[in-house]
Amino acid sequence: MVLHPDRLFPADPATRRVARQLFAAVGDLPITSPHGHTDPRWWGENPAFANPAELLVIPDHYVVRMLISQGVPFEALGIGEGAETDPRAIWRCFAAHYHLFQGTPSRLWLDHALSHVFGLDTRLAPDNADAAYDRIADCLARPEFRPRALYDRFGIETIATTDSALDDLHWHRMVRDSDWTGQVLPTYRPDGVVDPETPGFAAALDRLGEITGCDTATWQGYLDAHRQRRAFFRDMGATATDHGHPTPRTADLPPSEAGALFDRIRTGRAGPEDAELFRAQMLTEMARMSVDDGLVMQLHPGSFRNHSAAVLSRYGRDRGFDIPQPVSFTAALKPLLDAVGMDARLRLILFTLDETTYSRELAPLAGAWPSLRLGPPWWFHDSVEGIRRFRQQATETAGFFNTVGFNDDTRALCSIPARHDLSRRADCAFLAELVVTHRLDETEAHGLARLLARDLAREGYRLDG
Amino acid sequence: MVLHPDRLFPADPATRRVARQLFAAVGDLPITSPHGHTDPRWWGENPAFANPAELLVIPDHYVVRMLISQGVPFEALGIGEGAETDPRAIWRCFAAHYHLFQGTPSRLWLDHALSHVFGLDTRLAPDNADAAYDRIADCLARPEFRPRALYDRFGIETIATTDSALDDLHWHRMVRDSDWTGQVLPTYRPDGVVDPETPGFAAALDRLGEITGCDTATWQGYLDAHRQRRAFFRDMGATATDHGHPTPRTADLPPSEAGALFDRIRTGRAGPEDAELFRAQMLTEMARMSVDDGLVMQLHPGSFRNHSAAVLSRYGRDRGFDIPQPVSFTAALKPLLDAVGMDARLRLILFTLDETTYSRELAPLAGAWPSLRLGPPWWFHDSVEGIRRFRQQATETAGFFNTVGFNDDTRALCSIPARHDLSRRADCAFLAELVVTHRLDETEAHGLARLLARDLAREGYRLDG
Amino acid sequence: MVLHPDRLFPADPATRRVARQLFAAVGDLPITSPHGHTDPRWWGENPAFANPAELLVIPDHYVVRMLISQGVPFEALGIGEGAETDPRAIWRCFAAHYHLFQGTPSRLWLDHALSHVFGLDTRLAPDNADAAYDRIADCLARPEFRPRALYDRFGIETIATTDSALDDLHWHRMVRDSDWTGQVLPTYRPDGVVDPETPGFAAALDRLGEITGCDTATWQGYLDAHRQRRAFFRDMGATATDHGHPTPRTADLPPSEAGALFDRIRTGRAGPEDAELFRAQMLTEMARMSVDDGLVMQLHPGSFRNHSAAVLSRYGRDRGFDIPQPVSFTAALKPLLDAVGMDARLRLILFTLDETTYSRELAPLAGAWPSLRLGPPWWFHDSVEGIRRFRQQATETAGFFNTVGFNDDTRALCSIPARHDLSRRADCAFLAELVVTHRLDETEAHGLARLLARDLAREGYRLDG
Repeated sequence: MVLHPDRLFPADPATRRVARQLFAAVGDLPITSPHGHTDPRWWGENPAFANPAELLVIPDHYVVRMLISQGVPFEALGIGEGAETDPRAIWRCFAAHYHLFQGTPSRLWLDHALSHVFGLDTRLAPDNADAAYDRIADCLARPEFRPRALYDRFGIETIATTDSALDDLHWHRMVRDSDWTGQVLPTYRPDGVVDPETPGFAAALDRLGEITGCDTATWQGYLDAHRQRRAFFRDMGATATDHGHPTPRTADLPPSEAGALFDRIRTGRAGPEDAELFRAQMLTEMARMSVDDGLVMQLHPGSFRNHSAAVLSRYGRDRGFDIPQPVSFTAALKPLLDAVGMDARLRLILFTLDETTYSRELAPLAGAWPSLRLGPPWWFHDSVEGIRRFRQQATETAGFFNTVGFNDDTRALCSIPARHDLSRRADCAFLAELVVTHRLDETEAHGLARLLARDLAREGYRLDG
Repeated sequence: MVLHPDRLFPADPATRRVARQLFAAVGDLPITSPHGHTDPRWWGENPAFANPAELLVIPDHYVVRMLISQGVPFEALGIGEGAETDPRAIWRCFAAHYHLFQGTPSRLWLDHALSHVFGLDTRLAPDNADAAYDRIADCLARPEFRPRALYDRFGIETIATTDSALDDLHWHRMVRDSDWTGQVLPTYRPDGVVDPETPGFAAALDRLGEITGCDTATWQGYLDAHRQRRAFFRDMGATATDHGHPTPRTADLPPSEAGALFDRIRTGRAGPEDAELFRAQMLTEMARMSVDDGLVMQLHPGSFRNHSAAVLSRYGRDRGFDIPQPVSFTAALKPLLDAVGMDARLRLILFTLDETTYSRELAPLAGAWPSLRLGPPWWFHDSVEGIRRFRQQATETAGFFNTVGFNDDTRALCSIPARHDLSRRADCAFLAELVVTHRLDETEAHGLARLLARDLAREGYRLDG
Repeated sequence: MVLHPDRLFPADPATRRVARQLFAAVGDLPITSPHGHTDPRWWGENPAFANPAELLVIPDHYVVRMLISQGVPFEALGIGEGAETDPRAIWRCFAAHYHLFQGTPSRLWLDHALSHVFGLDTRLAPDNADAAYDRIADCLARPEFRPRALYDRFGIETIATTDSALDDLHWHRMVRDSDWTGQVLPTYRPDGVVDPETPGFAAALDRLGEITGCDTATWQGYLDAHRQRRAFFRDMGATATDHGHPTPRTADLPPSEAGALFDRIRTGRAGPEDAELFRAQMLTEMARMSVDDGLVMQLHPGSFRNHSAAVLSRYGRDRGFDIPQPVSFTAALKPLLDAVGMDARLRLILFTLDETTYSRELAPLAGAWPSLRLGPPWWFHDSVEGIRRFRQQATETAGFFNTVGFNDDTRALCSIPARHDLSRRADCAFLAELVVTHRLDETEAHGLARLLARDLAREGYRLDG
């Protein structure tokens, strides 16, 4: 049996019993996915997926990096010049290395997807690779394996995508104009027009000006352009913005200094510190706009993107070579918070790749500032042990109500039920431990299980208005 | 049942049995509270507490910050201009938000206080808020709920307060002059005359000169004034000093440089780094004085105090807006330790808000330097999970004997039994785990349980001479 | 019973059963010890150990520091001028303080050695100190307690020592020339000729030139000398190099700058940053040589050596006063990795004393770069809790196959079986937890237990060619 019904529940029998009961009531709740990276085209156009390798291997940076780490060349995975083009060969390579995932969340997600989505009842292995390939390929040819059908089958009620500030959101419009009832919301991610170190930044600002009719050669025009784009995203259903920054640094310069900084950047006279300072200032500007328009703000800091120059130049971005760095929020967030942090109209959800910040900084911050909430464990920490550490390290100071439920944060559609299943089980396991050690009543735990599985996500992202 | 007799014991039945036995022998030991912030007036004057809100809500920064974090205004909690003045209304607001504390130590402490101190046998909730208020208010009017009676009833044998270097300790004198047998000791906390960034620092140094008759315009006179005050505190029963610094940095400048630094600060010519350097130098000076007079030295570093400028200016200090920052002790403490760290007459107890230092720095330091001991988990980490992490991360390198038992560190009188109960249970749970995994014999665990519950605190703070 | 057969297995009965079964199959596997500090003379000359104190107390920095931390003078342990010279007196002092080790890995190792190696069936205590001393002393006089006999009896199949780049490896030659079948391999540790801050660095470079016939006054001659020495070590059986650096910083300067840097250092004109930059550059040079000659590279960064100036000057190095500091690998390793990190001929094994890097940096790095592997928990973290934290924090991102089994890393011969026993038990406990929570099948766990106990060490260090 690939998926044991008691998987991820605590070993102790009494605790397991409680976890099982808690999970029984929340395991099948609808899925709210308020932050992720599914392709809007899927939802707009509803295409068939091409083949098992293109669905499950090539675009999954968790899978790719693990195989690379053990000496598999990118080319064998269909990536790069002269790469393998036969999806079955790529799939066999994946199956031959499937043991590498023992003990990882990728294994749990993949096992779940293969079993739950495609009905494979033995674990992937070299000797069943072809049969699995054929089975999945057959499925993908059928209408019930197209994206919208999977959305419905997975019990998704709301999903958010993450979109460039310059995006015209035509796939989202296509969803709206269709008779399909799925709720697909865009998210305003302005990094490309906020981070001066993005390749093509100047052109992106020109484009931002064209789209909005604002003069993005001036600081005020540039801010107005953001306001317009945010309003457009909000009209298209967005309830949130998202900001991926190297650090959580914020700044709140006097307007004249901020304007002068913008001018230096816009005219190519930026000094070495200016890019970081501008990103810092823009977080505060975005927070001010959130106070006005109510969009929930998300901050995902601390990733050293594209750690390998060679991998970036040969194989591109998002290949599993983004490595976390130490971060500290306490001093970094103070300028933004002193500007607008006591205003409950602002909601700023903080994420981290540096788990040391859970108990040291994030829980104390979210346990005091009314504008702050804690996002769920992110990326490498979206895992059984990662979720346990988060709950153990954040709950005692921040409580449960300063957290916002689960994000799957994925571009891998078939992993969505697996990830929510995993997080719900992990949270029920944590709650069961609190019950059995008499830190919570069982009724309280039932209430919290539901909040963590669904309701806090809806409330945290203002999905119900 | 609000307080389950097995609360906080491990889930595994065999481990729980051992924990229960260990706790049975130490749960009722007298309470030694060698570091905390109870109001000396309570002990000197023994007043009645005004009402439930002023006892349990308004002054508790853990409670206040959690409610603020979820959008309750300070004014609803009786804090700030135009605030609510009806204590019952404040209490109802607190009760209406009591669910926010699920999973936090505040909930465990408050449940314990309401049940254990005031005999309430159902958990606080909106629908019993008034009844609870009435019951507590009735109690507070009775002599057996005055501070000294609670001290006796709680089984406290020694409690230390934390007092300004300029304090005349008249409340302590009042205790001494009374026929009450409680042992209330002052602690020398000189931050206000050591940290040049304290508001009113210059005036405080003048006052220090007046009190002592020393010329605090000179470096030597200033040091002499400290020596005098320390002697006075020692005469009044103090066995310890306490130092709350932004960082653990220490320095050991040549006397002429230290003198010149003091002159720059005293005459308003301090450079931007001088305040931090002066605090660093003063830690070493205090350590040298501890070698001479035997006062145990405590260092509490790493809090970014008053993180919100608005909260500080409108509502004052200690409102729950102190946020930890990363710290490192290894290089920071070396100057002090090279000066006097091998001298066993020095005892320096280290605390941290940055748990990463437990295994990386604090346990290796305390496991080598004869002058160093580790304080218990502090503030946000004074919790079930926090205590477990401390024991798991510090014990293997520092052992048990380089730790100093428990500190409740509280200004909330009624939480004292709860906090000691919690720490004793958490320590017994940890020891039980060692027994059941055959890392300790059960007899050894019994000995250690007693040390952790009481004896190491008395020895560590030199309370028995 | 000092050594319980179920020691270190999980408390939960079902999990314990699985752990027991896993351990039954790997507990007695031969010991591969690919990194450590045993004295090569032991293996070459096979001398008798002098007495219990010189075997088990004086050279063990874990033991010494713990006694020092509780006020025992170095002299009472036979260290320093005018020190105690009677080994029995030293032993008695050790026995009198044996309770200090409760809860530490030293206690587990010592209990194991006393019981397993010397057949003592009660735990060391003041009242059996003399009897234990006599028993051990008797043993040490017998041939079966000489180093080679212990190697055989312990079931060691391969052991590596750690040797200066200038060493002539004559003890290793003596082993080779003997008819003893033990496999003792040297390891190339060039710190003394790589770190300009080593006392006697210039003379060491001269000596390196003499030994190799290379002109170590020039950058190219200096690099050639390394190549020669590495080839010599390889001829003598080495499969690895080892690098103990204050930080993991690396650099990849253009050759002309690297040469100029070397010239500044060689001619005594080095600036304040040059030593760190040179160490950083040399890590990349060593990595390049590893690409060529296949020696596995080990990096042990982050120890603040000789934290007490007084202890260093009076009692020397390796007395337990080496204290970890925060480290970060992400930015630090990028220059080396961009130079040769995608080349699978390079194998670089990373160690850390800063556990925060496990989940934040090391697992993501090793889970992507094909050249990187993770060493086992090092030094203070080579312990039950340390191993658990490592597995819990690294496995989900790096998997098992990017780790290299266990290192005992010890200079304490009699602790070798104890340390491998402990790590095998701790790993089986971790695997059992994965089995019982349905994250692994039991057959998979059996395969992994064997890999973690032995096979990954052999593969990771390229011991089988």
